[in-house]
Amino acid sequence: METRGPWRRHHRQPLCTTARLVAYQDQVTQPDGRAGRYDWVRVPDQVRVAALVEGCLLIVEQHHYLTGTMWQLPGGDVDPKDGDSHAAARRELAEETGYRDGRWTPRGALHPLPGLTPARVHLWSADGLAPGEPAPEPGETDLAVRHVPLAEAVRAASDGRIGCASSAALVLAVATAHAG
Amino acid sequence: METRGPWRRHHRQPLCTTARLVAYQDQVTQPDGRAGRYDWVRVPDQVRVAALVEGCLLIVEQHHYLTGTMWQLPGGDVDPKDGDSHAAARRELAEETGYRDGRWTPRGALHPLPGLTPARVHLWSADGLAPGEPAPEPGETDLAVRHVPLAEAVRAASDGRIGCASSAALVLAVATAHAG
Repeated sequence: METRGPWRRHHRQPLCTTARLVAYQDQVTQPDGRAGRYDWVRVPDQVRVAALVEGCLLIVEQHHYLTGTMWQLPGGDVDPKDGDSHAAARRELAEETGYRDGRWTPRGALHPLPGLTPARVHLWSADGLAPGEPAPEPGETDLAVRHVPLAEAVRAASDGRIGCASSAALVLAVATAHAG
Repeated sequence: METRGPWRRHHRQPLCTTARLVAYQDQVTQPDGRAGRYDWVRVPDQVRVAALVEGCLLIVEQHHYLTGTMWQLPGGDVDPKDGDSHAAARRELAEETGYRDGRWTPRGALHPLPGLTPARVHLWSADGLAPGEPAPEPGETDLAVRHVPLAEAVRAASDGRIGCASSAALVLAVATAHAG
């Protein structure tokens, strides 16, 4: 048995396993003392990068299989070969936009769906970057990179164009830090 | 076969089904023309509420089973009985904080994990609310409600105390709109 704050876990059963995710069902005692089940999903952590190039943020426009066309900050899964989220952030930015090198600042991490998965999205900002050739993944060949002025990106984070929660949070946090 | 932008879907297989989630594997043609599989999860849409009471945002502090203790805006799943996200937002705010009635403004919707699930988090703000008795759910009996000044909530959205991505995005969007 494992205690997690006011929760207790008695048993864990994997329900299905694929290359991308594992779904589990845990037998638990809830904070109110009653027995219950907690279904959850293990997926890799992700990274998102606020990359500033001449006063603009690099924004990726792409058709997502599940959600349609959307603006998002560059990023993706932390792969086992990356080692850490900084390496993953540098790799994803270079693959999607070509930009590399530069000065990098950690901007914390957020839980995208804390009730469903313990996965986190690690946030980074970068400037002083050098341009290069992108190398998109097979699911990303329709990807387009836009240079969006910071003030316009802030509007896009509030009006739904930036449809990704972690991207919107990072754009607004970077803009708030600039304004302060 | 279904076409989704540059993707094509040929077949869909449910992998596991629980009361909270369904995991699927789709057979697809990727944007680069190659055959592939796309694993994804169906979960309910959610709501988050930025509720302003005398210059403070109502922040919920709670031990989450998967992620530990965290600050979050009030909210939760959109239930079938809610009908729409506005009804869900009003129900969740009243259950978690007791506050009800007031003036409500839609603040769009964000995808928490667009690569894993098509689920959205619908965002609302509210003010002019009337206090009342909370009615927490069985997993939420350790829930505490804090009245956090807006400027402090903005810092908490950037320094990791507000660990939920949609909550952080909504706090920063509301503060940016106030400042503008």
